[in-house]
Amino acid sequence: MAGIREPLLPVPGFSWLGRNIGIKDDRLDFGVAFSERPCAAAAVFTRNNFPGAPVIVGREHVAGGRLQAIVVNSKNANVATGATGIEHARRVCQQLAAALGIDATLVLPSSTGVIGVPLPVEKLEAACRVVPGALAGDRAALEAFARAIMTTDTRPKAVSVRIGAAVLTGVAKGAGMIEPNLATMLSYFFTDALLPPRTLRAMLRRTVARSFNRLSVDSDTSTSDTVVVMANGLAGAVPAAAFEAALAEATAYLAQEIARDGEGATKLIELTVAEAPSARAALAFAKSVINSPLVKTALYGADPNWGRFVMAIGKVFAHPVPIGGLSIEFGQERPPLAISAAGQSPELLARISAYLQRPEVRLVIRLGYGRHQETVWGCDLTEGYIKENAYYTT
Amino acid sequence: MAGIREPLLPVPGFSWLGRNIGIKDDRLDFGVAFSERPCAAAAVFTRNNFPGAPVIVGREHVAGGRLQAIVVNSKNANVATGATGIEHARRVCQQLAAALGIDATLVLPSSTGVIGVPLPVEKLEAACRVVPGALAGDRAALEAFARAIMTTDTRPKAVSVRIGAAVLTGVAKGAGMIEPNLATMLSYFFTDALLPPRTLRAMLRRTVARSFNRLSVDSDTSTSDTVVVMANGLAGAVPAAAFEAALAEATAYLAQEIARDGEGATKLIELTVAEAPSARAALAFAKSVINSPLVKTALYGADPNWGRFVMAIGKVFAHPVPIGGLSIEFGQERPPLAISAAGQSPELLARISAYLQRPEVRLVIRLGYGRHQETVWGCDLTEGYIKENAYYTT
Repeated sequence: MAGIREPLLPVPGFSWLGRNIGIKDDRLDFGVAFSERPCAAAAVFTRNNFPGAPVIVGREHVAGGRLQAIVVNSKNANVATGATGIEHARRVCQQLAAALGIDATLVLPSSTGVIGVPLPVEKLEAACRVVPGALAGDRAALEAFARAIMTTDTRPKAVSVRIGAAVLTGVAKGAGMIEPNLATMLSYFFTDALLPPRTLRAMLRRTVARSFNRLSVDSDTSTSDTVVVMANGLAGAVPAAAFEAALAEATAYLAQEIARDGEGATKLIELTVAEAPSARAALAFAKSVINSPLVKTALYGADPNWGRFVMAIGKVFAHPVPIGGLSIEFGQERPPLAISAAGQSPELLARISAYLQRPEVRLVIRLGYGRHQETVWGCDLTEGYIKENAYYTT
Repeated sequence: MAGIREPLLPVPGFSWLGRNIGIKDDRLDFGVAFSERPCAAAAVFTRNNFPGAPVIVGREHVAGGRLQAIVVNSKNANVATGATGIEHARRVCQQLAAALGIDATLVLPSSTGVIGVPLPVEKLEAACRVVPGALAGDRAALEAFARAIMTTDTRPKAVSVRIGAAVLTGVAKGAGMIEPNLATMLSYFFTDALLPPRTLRAMLRRTVARSFNRLSVDSDTSTSDTVVVMANGLAGAVPAAAFEAALAEATAYLAQEIARDGEGATKLIELTVAEAPSARAALAFAKSVINSPLVKTALYGADPNWGRFVMAIGKVFAHPVPIGGLSIEFGQERPPLAISAAGQSPELLARISAYLQRPEVRLVIRLGYGRHQETVWGCDLTEGYIKENAYYTT
């Protein structure tokens, strides 16, 4: 199945469910992940100044570094819903905790969907009461959970990585309102490796910085973004470096999957800015290019439009660089398909245009003005994005 | 004619032309504005770090505060063309100056169109030689000039304002690659008022800051943006305050015209952020909202999507404000059609949606957290923008 990287592995000691409880229509809209024992846990959340109620409650609950369950709904974000929204998020946690016989502070709530509409909390409470009999530790349950968190996603997104005897499995959702400089909308990682919360937290920060924080679909920063990792310890200790490498691989895969499945997107764009004077400058250039609507539409049209790249690099006022050393490589052929102010023959442009027809394109912008580089992921901007977003709530 | 505000007034002492010289196709692509005497002049240019060759040469020429002619071509921006591009811009100025019998440093060059393609300089030089016999001081010549600078514009844009016995007439072009925080693509103002260059420069800075610098079509900053004002003094002195008010009116009209004619746009959006803790914060919120693709597509769909406004205000990390005081007014009815976290009845949303069908919509976002306000202009994001930009150069 597209979006799920095989083999997808359930994690010993965890169980999941995904159900429809009728929040909006008949698609899956309610999910629970549960660990039979309390987990070491870490999470990062949106930097949006108006975080959703579940983010506010989730920050409190994960502060101690321990979680045992995640309860999530799609089709309603429970954002901009005031004190009532926060009370609703707490009630859902309390109801699930009571049903599972655990402490409510071990439950992390998440909601995603429309903003500013009251959460139908009774539906969620009723669903929580029947959770214990519905959880399962198999692949089907894990997939149902991954589907239950979808909104405008076209497919569930999940990945597993083995670390010795342990396994790390992550799921994610997100297709719009996705901006770099924060975690993506929702992503959950489950592992049976044994890791202390402090280590998990540091690893999550570092790997998110190189994955979800390098991702942009449309430059808009969600109010609900959440990335959580839960480690139940059943497989015992694993080398920290090996686990961090696995987490890096899993977060990078899911970040790219979100860009591939960006609203209306026809292609994944991987962009590296190299030979920059600093890492900060490299990232600023990369974000300016990956977010430029003129670059995004040019790539949609498979148009190697040199001038739009020049514009997008030049508009980063804080980091002036000379234009003389600038070149752009398309794809990974050697010698590279590269354009610069010097060389843009019609034959070369035709070959690049043919390359840009692919569903995944890789670009390297060389500035010739330093030694730093950064890589980001994004997608093209198409009529599909407009259609999807011009008529979403009403 | 749409785009031109009537009455459009030629300015005594100035003459213009607009011609086709075959740079790309058979549309007008070459324009000249000439004053029979040297003018006090001021100009502002793009902040893009890769300015076009004409911007580089134009900065030199206007530095002394005097200009007598403007030579402009569309269909080729002469940007990212290296030392050759700068030489080309100088050659065009020199050829026009020779034909008109003036100094080359009194000529301001401008080019707009595709980036990174060598300017067909011989065509421009040939055209310059026949300029003296083709200039005219009437409305038809002025309109031809306004048309000659168009690229993806659907209509010429021009406005006149009287200041006592003097007149101020401005023309502008621009539809894409338009970002706030700088001048727009190309705009020229002609007046027979008598004003010293220093006064003109200060007035231009202030009025541009409140007009073109409050404008965004797509958040992309052009490499060619130029705004010039030329005052030939024939009408004698006018009160400075009256002239600045006229310049403010003319620049605001043309900035709004550019947003109205934004690539693919179906509506002009005027957005005021009020009750902000500082002017800087008000502008940051306003730009975040007017540039948000999710807000822009929602307005295209006439969807009063409260959540997307909340998101766009919340993603201004530098200026946290409490969500409690936030409300959004649509239109100018009293009492206002306003939504907040408190009140969003279906009837109200339907009335707002009906209002949002209009070709010009006015929104006021009240933060309830201060006394400062700023107004910006933009447009919606539609399939038309995608179509226009997915296939532009190749």
